[in-house]
Amino acid sequence: MKRFVLACALPRCGAALILGSLMTTAAIAEDMLRADPDRMQSRIEALGQFGANPEGGVSRVAFSDADLEGRAWLKEQMVSLGLTVSTDLAGNIVGRRVGNNEALPPILFGSHIDSVPGGGNYDGQVGVVGALEVVELLNQAGITTEHPLEVVSFTDEEGGLVGSRAMIGKLTEDALDVVSNSGFTIREGLARVGGDAERIEEAARPPESLTAFLELHIEQGGILEQKELQIGVVQGIVGIRWWDVTVEGVANHGGTTPMPQRNDALVAASKLAIAINTTATELEGRQVATVGRIEAFPGAPNVVPGKVIMSLEIRDLDGDKMQQVFDLVETQAQDIAKASEVSISFNELDVASPPALTDTGIRDLIAEAAESLGYSYQRMPSGAGHDAQDLAKITPTGMIFVPSKGGISHSPYEYTSPEDMANGATVLFHTVMALDAQ
Amino acid sequence: MKRFVLACALPRCGAALILGSLMTTAAIAEDMLRADPDRMQSRIEALGQFGANPEGGVSRVAFSDADLEGRAWLKEQMVSLGLTVSTDLAGNIVGRRVGNNEALPPILFGSHIDSVPGGGNYDGQVGVVGALEVVELLNQAGITTEHPLEVVSFTDEEGGLVGSRAMIGKLTEDALDVVSNSGFTIREGLARVGGDAERIEEAARPPESLTAFLELHIEQGGILEQKELQIGVVQGIVGIRWWDVTVEGVANHGGTTPMPQRNDALVAASKLAIAINTTATELEGRQVATVGRIEAFPGAPNVVPGKVIMSLEIRDLDGDKMQQVFDLVETQAQDIAKASEVSISFNELDVASPPALTDTGIRDLIAEAAESLGYSYQRMPSGAGHDAQDLAKITPTGMIFVPSKGGISHSPYEYTSPEDMANGATVLFHTVMALDAQ
Repeated sequence: MKRFVLACALPRCGAALILGSLMTTAAIAEDMLRADPDRMQSRIEALGQFGANPEGGVSRVAFSDADLEGRAWLKEQMVSLGLTVSTDLAGNIVGRRVGNNEALPPILFGSHIDSVPGGGNYDGQVGVVGALEVVELLNQAGITTEHPLEVVSFTDEEGGLVGSRAMIGKLTEDALDVVSNSGFTIREGLARVGGDAERIEEAARPPESLTAFLELHIEQGGILEQKELQIGVVQGIVGIRWWDVTVEGVANHGGTTPMPQRNDALVAASKLAIAINTTATELEGRQVATVGRIEAFPGAPNVVPGKVIMSLEIRDLDGDKMQQVFDLVETQAQDIAKASEVSISFNELDVASPPALTDTGIRDLIAEAAESLGYSYQRMPSGAGHDAQDLAKITPTGMIFVPSKGGISHSPYEYTSPEDMANGATVLFHTVMALDAQ
Repeated sequence: MKRFVLACALPRCGAALILGSLMTTAAIAEDMLRADPDRMQSRIEALGQFGANPEGGVSRVAFSDADLEGRAWLKEQMVSLGLTVSTDLAGNIVGRRVGNNEALPPILFGSHIDSVPGGGNYDGQVGVVGALEVVELLNQAGITTEHPLEVVSFTDEEGGLVGSRAMIGKLTEDALDVVSNSGFTIREGLARVGGDAERIEEAARPPESLTAFLELHIEQGGILEQKELQIGVVQGIVGIRWWDVTVEGVANHGGTTPMPQRNDALVAASKLAIAINTTATELEGRQVATVGRIEAFPGAPNVVPGKVIMSLEIRDLDGDKMQQVFDLVETQAQDIAKASEVSISFNELDVASPPALTDTGIRDLIAEAAESLGYSYQRMPSGAGHDAQDLAKITPTGMIFVPSKGGISHSPYEYTSPEDMANGATVLFHTVMALDAQ
């Protein structure tokens, strides 16, 4: 009750109540529902026991014993909330809540509970705990939605969106033979979690079998925190392109080659690394470009490097913008190559993922929910990959971000406050209700 | 005869003959002596059979079977020239030629015949073949010098000046246990070449046991070729200092961290690498500074580097100048660190070698010899390390450079023309004679 009073002390809340004057009593009751920060925090902590690492996070890589324990806990939670639990052939855990009209395709929402090695307690987990919280609120208010609802926890998100990729029918045979961080191949791992690699294609759900997909997730970046915003309305998951960049000069004796006679590949590569950073920084927009790996050859302290290989990654929500950044980088590379008397070549790797846009209608529903709840928010891209980028290919998809302290992620030190988690779950709840009402 | 006529067609040669009007008949005959390019080239090719690599160079690392074969060949050559051959306890091969006054300490000259893996036919070998050529000329003219002469081929120059270091009594116990490129430890290797690690201190020669040391060597750089000079009068072997440079920023997600929020260690390291290069290039003098090795951590294409470790090497003939370069680099590093919000630290490694100056009197003798022979020359530092840097610690030392085509060295493609080798050997001969006359 306290939380309701607080919320309605905000100007927007009063406005929403006035605008909502035609609502039924039940609908008004829905409007008043807020996720419980303490309950969510308790579930985060309970889940955090499985694979707990010394730094206070979790190392619960998919298919590990810790993952199996976490999955068992999750199923119990679902059952205790009255959901009908099943595991599909990709090991995705689905808890179904009956709707008034069972002929309607369900609204799917959730995230994942596996972590990276040395991970934290929030990436993925907030989305699953938030989905359970939505069911808590529905149960609490005695609401039965028109659509059936399905809470999902996807298999092995961190290892390459394995579960969601299977759900959209795009998990390849090659991917099944990849050795996961657990030491098991994906194929072996699926068997450990109730899936079946031999029948993986049966995990695919046709577009008509879903109404929509929603995912609540921590931002994994520092934008919301820096701007002191509570909610991010995700416009989509950025596209990613990778290149190997090779700079070739002339390897030479570091003692006997005078400075003016050098064709030092590392000096040229350094100029290019700065040009890449400057280009992505100065161009208007949210594009990012990263050189994360670099190696000089032959790599001895007393030899002028004759060759440097470095990585280049460009991300943006707009494919044309990614190309624009690359074109600008390539032009500067040509200038640097000419001035430094080296050659520079770009080899794009076959790992590109195109931008995956969220549904514009659902973005509006999320923004309206945040607005009416009085939460500060902004529309923004997701710089990281998520299961939502797969689901967006087969069903209208929406994604809600909550702040990450310090922008830290994939680390035991990632943190999102109980209040921020609850804000996100409340927005998720109201978005589900809005979708259900459409 | 042709060469003599050609040489005397040069204005300086006439001047030398006039200046030399008081010389005896024997002395004039000495002045006319010139090394034979064809004979030297034949010896280079004969020696090149041992450890020949497919690219046309040699892989004759010290203590290998090829090295043993090359050493046997060299001893035969020495014997056939009338030298008395011995091997000291460091495996250094010494061929002695009797002098008129055997009470005088010998004039020592030579170089080494071991190579780097995948090396060429000239590094070291020109100096040994050139020393044999000096003996050829003496034999040809029937000259007996006042001082005894010793032709030396040092053991394992490429593996850390092993033979010359032992000769000056500075080879450490630790060095004996290093595994050489042959796969043998230095200790084992010495036993293979007639040395004895247990008695290595007996290889040390006291300063009074030598009159001087001279080394003919290829430049291993491109200065002489670029300036179209025939002879380099080496002023000394540059000092070398090494640092590990650590740049620490903040590792972050390459997708979710906006460009302005990054503390990218690699961008800062790139700025520093450019500053190092620019500083060494723009400062007056012949100092060089090299970043030959670089690594970014964690080193994934999708992670903003949180740390970079790179090497820094500074070389110069003047220790103060080396310090000046370092001080300038360090100042700029502080500015970069501040502007990029990273930290930069320098950790000097315990491998420094101080500059080793050659004897100023011998430099003058070499320059006078080149001058009177009509060879173009300049005084210059040696950017690479040589046995001469050890010998300089116990006896007046001189070093003669001849051009390296394209400045290439430590490669099968290193090349010095027969004429250039012969010029160097002729200068060596006349320098030996001048020293003997002192």
